[in-house]
Amino acid sequence: MTRLEILGVEGMPEIAAGADLAGIICEHADLHPGDVLVVTQKIVSKAENAMAVVDPDDPLSHKPLVERESVRVLRRRGDLIISETKHGFVCANAGIDLSNVERGRAALLPEDSDRSARRIRDGVRGRTGVEVAVIVSDTFGRPWRRGVTDVAIGSAGILPIVDLRGTTDAHGREMQVTEVAVVDELAAAADLACGKAAGIPVAVIRGVDAAWLGTGSVADDVVRSPADDLFR
Amino acid sequence: MTRLEILGVEGMPEIAAGADLAGIICEHADLHPGDVLVVTQKIVSKAENAMAVVDPDDPLSHKPLVERESVRVLRRRGDLIISETKHGFVCANAGIDLSNVERGRAALLPEDSDRSARRIRDGVRGRTGVEVAVIVSDTFGRPWRRGVTDVAIGSAGILPIVDLRGTTDAHGREMQVTEVAVVDELAAAADLACGKAAGIPVAVIRGVDAAWLGTGSVADDVVRSPADDLFR
Repeated sequence: MTRLEILGVEGMPEIAAGADLAGIICEHADLHPGDVLVVTQKIVSKAENAMAVVDPDDPLSHKPLVERESVRVLRRRGDLIISETKHGFVCANAGIDLSNVERGRAALLPEDSDRSARRIRDGVRGRTGVEVAVIVSDTFGRPWRRGVTDVAIGSAGILPIVDLRGTTDAHGREMQVTEVAVVDELAAAADLACGKAAGIPVAVIRGVDAAWLGTGSVADDVVRSPADDLFR
Repeated sequence: MTRLEILGVEGMPEIAAGADLAGIICEHADLHPGDVLVVTQKIVSKAENAMAVVDPDDPLSHKPLVERESVRVLRRRGDLIISETKHGFVCANAGIDLSNVERGRAALLPEDSDRSARRIRDGVRGRTGVEVAVIVSDTFGRPWRRGVTDVAIGSAGILPIVDLRGTTDAHGREMQVTEVAVVDELAAAADLACGKAAGIPVAVIRGVDAAWLGTGSVADDVVRSPADDLFR
């Protein structure tokens, strides 16, 4: 059988500003060439000190931050703001989040999460000599469907979109649905192992098709430009 | 380490109308209690004969079908129609698809894919005595992000949304992002094993949190009502 494994990396310590994430991950995971390392945004933001101070007694004190981190507000309902961030992500509250952070602090999105992914990838290579792919994941809602899922906000060492255009299906006909956002599918798969409150902020996915390893970034390949978008 | 496996089920034959899908899957996969079986929509539609006749020489001959299968058109651009189906799904071309089907035929969505999932689950139990969860998956695009990913269009034996409201994070604070669409994350994970043209229409996910097994349906739990939706 075709087989992949999703391994949650346990025992990671609390991550502080300036932490060597790649080093800490290497201490807690046995990485193999071709593994895809999925690192949740929160610990990346903490390591990069992408944090802001908020009033711990005011549950809405992060709202001015949401406005500041947004380049365009798409929808508002009550306290909820769906906006486009400077990175081009469309998500709730500009990706700002108060859970699993110190009281009185809010985690922002990393400045450039593709760069964050490249740094972790380079750090793993430098420390162990092992070439892995890295995805930085975050938890976004979707229109039309209830519930949140994890998606990729940064990547390195992997094709974000695998283009099957021109390949033929089992009937010899050219495929129609073709460009698969494998980084998002990998981020979603990793979340199955990273229990939300269980303190597993990193997962390793092993057995990924080697043809998917390559170059690209979420910003360049996954973020859809407003001109191409039918819902902006 | 927390560990899940994604196993692509190989060697499945071409599925004909009336095929006993559960029986065929059981012949090709060694299923364990608590496994999540992810079955791609195309073979479900074939087994249920949810097919329509189209002119094989006219690449747009399925467009009237798209109108017929839609209850509301959200956007049009060129030949692309984004619409809401009678099931409440918002997707391109009402989920109608010409790839991997016989020439001159188009696959429609199953009439009720939660029922399809229940039937497969019951069929597996009847044949082997093993209790599995079943997800019927399909490939949808998304606004704001390029590329398609697999999502659940039907489920049985699993909580579609796992509600973490009220649980506390590692800092003892109540979690904020809470309702995880695990059926969609499982569908996405399965697609990593089901190569689009490689003839792997079923995957088994092993090691899923037993607390997620339960009752619910995609129609009831995942489809967001238009009144709650900010983008319809």
